[in-house]
Formats: sequence, structure tokens, C-alpha cells
Amino acid sequence: MKYCSHCGSDAVTFSIPKGDDRPRHLCGNCGAIYYINPRIIVGTLPYLGDKVLLCRRAIEPRRGLWTLPAGFMENGETSEEGALRESWEEARANIRVDDLYTIYDIPYINQLYLMYRGELTDTSFGPGPESLEVKLFEEKEIPWDEIAFPIIQETLAHYFADRKTGSFPLRRGVIHRKL
Amino acid sequence: MKYCSHCGSDAVTFSIPKGDDRPRHLCGNCGAIYYINPRIIVGTLPYLGDKVLLCRRAIEPRRGLWTLPAGFMENGETSEEGALRESWEEARANIRVDDLYTIYDIPYINQLYLMYRGELTDTSFGPGPESLEVKLFEEKEIPWDEIAFPIIQETLAHYFADRKTGSFPLRRGVIHRKL
Repeated sequence: MKYCSHCGSDAVTFSIPKGDDRPRHLCGNCGAIYYINPRIIVGTLPYLGDKVLLCRRAIEPRRGLWTLPAGFMENGETSEEGALRESWEEARANIRVDDLYTIYDIPYINQLYLMYRGELTDTSFGPGPESLEVKLFEEKEIPWDEIAFPIIQETLAHYFADRKTGSFPLRRGVIHRKL
Repeated sequence: MKYCSHCGSDAVTFSIPKGDDRPRHLCGNCGAIYYINPRIIVGTLPYLGDKVLLCRRAIEPRRGLWTLPAGFMENGETSEEGALRESWEEARANIRVDDLYTIYDIPYINQLYLMYRGELTDTSFGPGPESLEVKLFEEKEIPWDEIAFPIIQETLAHYFADRKTGSFPLRRGVIHRKL
């Protein structure tokens, strides 16, 4: 951040405001303080029978790898609405949500993931502009080495394990940077 | 947003970027796009025996009303770490977390609340700078008409109901604007 978006001044420093305990972008001219907070990623785990829907990414990062439909939650929507919106945008998938399924913190990239589990209500899915391909996979067909993100691997692994018991409790976790 | 924080230009409009479907702050000079996303509030429901810890707010909004310790999640922390940090900052409370307890969407103010349930590990709590008073309440003492926010009322109501059964499943909900 080089310029203050309130007053246009270039007197912006990254320093600790009075009464705070951590550095913020701070305007030395008008006093504006800018808070940058973690972002929420919302998505779904869409299933149909014993298959799960994955999307092959058409965009960076991890272009060409497989993922579950997910993206940044927007202002004015609930997390479930955002998850369904992303599922439509990326996979043209219509889903009836069962429940919230995984919550993962990824503190080193300032993200919180909320993934909803839900059944496809039809088979009219297909790639949206951010996907190269959208496809149903049985467990033994999952391309584990070509999954885009660890959080998606963990969500899928929980799902296939929980499906054996028929019980899908909320799964929480933290993804740490690989050393 | 009046000025672009990348280039300092005042050619910032609120319009739909190419390939997007909703308006963003957009710099007509350098092309920077600014995304504003929902923020996460993290907090705890601290209990000890049959009592629950509440804080009386020393700051606006709702100064003077009672709430559970909670605040904006910060970059670089997990939601649980943030909840414990806020509990310390607002109530000097030391807590051993049992589990995530409530998740509430509040779309009209672009917030997502995550409240963790946990037992106080000692009675050395007390008001931090944002609290006037911090106190343990039995269920019958809860000042229901003086609770600062509906999400806090709902979290407390779930807790006292669930305590009767001894089972505390994740409680999800949406808070809508009062008409």
C-alpha cells in the first residue's frame, strides 16, 4: 500500500497505531488506519451416488490440477449461498446442501475454508470459465497426486473415510506451510 | 475509496471489472481492482461450573451492554487462536477450548462469527481495555435484555438448552436485519 485511499497522501507507513498491538497501514497525513483480515473461501463437496465432482482448474494457481468448487466469499451473501454460487460458477453444478462439512484454517496465507457437503440434484454440470473440465470420480479414480490444494485432499479423504460409516461430523483442521 | 492505494490516482470508480459480475473499486489509471470481502469474528463462550462469563462493553457499538468475548480475526492466526486472543484481551480469561460451537452468517453486515466453547482454567479473569466489567452469570441471572448482539443471544440460548442434554453439536445460523 503506497497511497492513502482516503486522502491520496503517500505518507503511508506500516506501523503500530496508538492503542493497537500490531502494525497496520497507517496514513501519516489524515490518520486513516487500514485493517487487512483473513479471507473466507467457501465451496462444496458435490456427490452423486458413490461419485464426487471435481473441477480441473483453468486458472492459476495450480492450473490443470483438480479441485472441489470453491472461491472467495463475497459481501452480502451467507457462506452457504457463496458455496452454491461458486459451485455454479466453476462447475455449473446444482446442489442440495446436506450440511457444513469441513472448516480449515490456513493461517500462513490468511484463509479460512468452509466446505459444504451436498448431493447433485441433476447431471447438467459442466465447466464454467475457471474450469477446463468437470467430472465425477469414484473413490478409486481420484487423482490424489493431482489435487490442487492440501485442504481439498483432506476434505476428500475425510469424506471417503466417513462414507464408510455413514456419519459425517464436522471436520476441523489447520493446514501449515510445508517445510 | 477515493484514491488508488497503488498509484495515488483519483480515477477510482465503483464498477464491474471485465470478466467479473459485480462492482468493485477499480482504478482507471493503473487498473488495480480492490476486493472487499466478509470479515470473520472469533470468540468464546467461557464457562465455569454452571456459570458463563460475560463482558460489559466499554466501546461502541452497544457500549454498556453485555457480550461474549469476541473480535476480528487477524492475519496469521487460526480462528481458535484468535478466539483465545480476544478472550484474553477483553476478559483476561484463560480458557481450555472444548470445540467450535456456533457458526453464524450475518450477511447484511458482511460478517461470519465463529464461537468456541471452553472452560475457564482459573478465576483470574477481569476487564481488559475494551470491557467495563467481566462477570460470571448463572442461567437465571443472564441479562437477556441487555445482550449487545443477537448472535450472542443465540449462542447463549443454544448453550443453556444444550447443557440440559449434555450434548453440544455445532449450531449454525443466519442473522438477518431486523425489519
